[in-house]
Amino acid sequence: MQTVIAVDAMGSDRAPKPEIEGVILAARHYGLKILLVGPEQQLRSELAHHPSAHELPIEVVNATEVIGMHEKAQAVRTKRDSTLRVGLKLVKNGEAAGFVTAGNTGAAMATAKMVLGVLPGVDRPALAAVFPTSAGKASIMVDVGANVDSKPQNISQFAIMGEIYYRTIFGVKRPSVGLLSIGEEESKGNELTRHAYALIKELPVNFIGNVEGRDLYNGRVDVIACDGFVGNVALKISEGIAEAFSYLLKESLKSTIASQVGYLLSRKAFVDFKKRVDYSEYGGAPLLGLRGVAIVGHGSSNANAIKNAVRVAKQSAESGINSRIEQELAFSKTAVGAGTWEPS
Amino acid sequence: MQTVIAVDAMGSDRAPKPEIEGVILAARHYGLKILLVGPEQQLRSELAHHPSAHELPIEVVNATEVIGMHEKAQAVRTKRDSTLRVGLKLVKNGEAAGFVTAGNTGAAMATAKMVLGVLPGVDRPALAAVFPTSAGKASIMVDVGANVDSKPQNISQFAIMGEIYYRTIFGVKRPSVGLLSIGEEESKGNELTRHAYALIKELPVNFIGNVEGRDLYNGRVDVIACDGFVGNVALKISEGIAEAFSYLLKESLKSTIASQVGYLLSRKAFVDFKKRVDYSEYGGAPLLGLRGVAIVGHGSSNANAIKNAVRVAKQSAESGINSRIEQELAFSKTAVGAGTWEPS
Repeated sequence: MQTVIAVDAMGSDRAPKPEIEGVILAARHYGLKILLVGPEQQLRSELAHHPSAHELPIEVVNATEVIGMHEKAQAVRTKRDSTLRVGLKLVKNGEAAGFVTAGNTGAAMATAKMVLGVLPGVDRPALAAVFPTSAGKASIMVDVGANVDSKPQNISQFAIMGEIYYRTIFGVKRPSVGLLSIGEEESKGNELTRHAYALIKELPVNFIGNVEGRDLYNGRVDVIACDGFVGNVALKISEGIAEAFSYLLKESLKSTIASQVGYLLSRKAFVDFKKRVDYSEYGGAPLLGLRGVAIVGHGSSNANAIKNAVRVAKQSAESGINSRIEQELAFSKTAVGAGTWEPS
Repeated sequence: MQTVIAVDAMGSDRAPKPEIEGVILAARHYGLKILLVGPEQQLRSELAHHPSAHELPIEVVNATEVIGMHEKAQAVRTKRDSTLRVGLKLVKNGEAAGFVTAGNTGAAMATAKMVLGVLPGVDRPALAAVFPTSAGKASIMVDVGANVDSKPQNISQFAIMGEIYYRTIFGVKRPSVGLLSIGEEESKGNELTRHAYALIKELPVNFIGNVEGRDLYNGRVDVIACDGFVGNVALKISEGIAEAFSYLLKESLKSTIASQVGYLLSRKAFVDFKKRVDYSEYGGAPLLGLRGVAIVGHGSSNANAIKNAVRVAKQSAESGINSRIEQELAFSKTAVGAGTWEPS
């Protein structure tokens, strides 16, 4: 049977263009069926501009409301016919195997918790981010924003969920797992990380101990577990510094004729470079720990990013990531639930 | 009277070469006297290779021990004749107006606390880092590693100390101050930042509210206050991503003949670019809140970085930053000391 993925047509900053182009690519390349969720009439007329779309298994599912990027949390409850809610309901009811949105991450997490619910054994679902590294492979960081004021057992669960995700999506048998801290020794870090360290080292994963901020991009570690506040700061710094670097480099390259010529000659290299550091290749951030597959892309997603997010949703669904998470959390229960903890 | 700055000759990764070249530059350009601290014989024979050094006011002060980059904390107490301790004693005794080292930051902070002591009104001294931004000006972040598990009143004090430092060193009358968090609204963040927000907004500084990771490099804010764990992670991510970008860009530029030619033509632009993002221009990280001036440079400091760190030490000493911190903390006491706080 063909895998069915539901896609929020109205999530990205330039919606629905990237979504429509992205699902056409995905339907063509991955042999799956798409349920495109959004205002029916608008989507039908947009799809009509793409003659090839008619031959592809793309269906429109009507949803009349959109939760904007900057809307308050209550919109999740008041907008009963939002693309997020309608799309996630399709997963809940078994009509789709996974859901993709490039919209408001916080609203996606809240709606997913409400509609899908949380897997047994998971205390708090998490958002994972995929980073490119200079070693040419990806690393992932969990959690990057869904959970602030985490407890050590939450971070231990993030480590397990991230490890399973990495193993499944990147096909690495025994990915390395690190705890984000400020020094390599076990004693380094803050109270939270020292307690989390003690729990993670008892898990049946390839734990390499504390890792530092610089290890995010050097490929030393595959899976980085951290509290959601620190993870979100890390994610946004990375976006900020990437923008600042591009800007400063362009400014410098404008300064002389020679360097302008140089820039033109090296343009292909810049495009390659941008592609290597472009996380749209990695297909968005998965929400882990839910009873269903949900992938959140960046608001600035282009068609390629949407296509890759659909691929990741398909892989997540077909490989049964969620039942693995459920099983392995039950197996590790003694470790992750060990003791109670309150900050002193 | 000539300002005297003590410089650790043995701190940097390639010590004492960058230190010796750096103090020669500093003594020549800034009209100050240098006390170069380290093994006397070695330093004298190295200085002999620089004929111009004889005419400059550079004196060697003997110190026979060095605390390495990866030494444990106890070295601070056991190595009684370390360059750090001897150099900071010169400040304590009034023989130098400030101290510069490119050595072990943790050891420098611990030794400085022990030798110099803490200013009245300061609960915890802090380490500030200076970042370049795409707006062409610097921003600073306090704390970046000296304090984990900060309390809200610590972060409020970091904001005051950072603001005074920025005002003094960068000559900005009313620098903007932000609190590092994960969303702009007052309600966003974790328990610690929400409590710190309430304190900082009562301070007599230009508080612009929460800022996010991406604002580190866009020049939106001059002074960023945060807990030392988050600040240290942020600092190390920045170093890591800068290295990864350079590496990936070089790799991409190797790929075709055209882009190699392009690289050669644009090389001057790359050098300019590197200089703009090179924090050696900004002169190292000050330790704030101590009874004396101490500046910590990066282990990879070159002569230029040492020279600039000496300049910053001189400016800090001559402008009386520490008495300003003492006065303004006393003035803001009601705000920064407001209430007690325990994480719930």
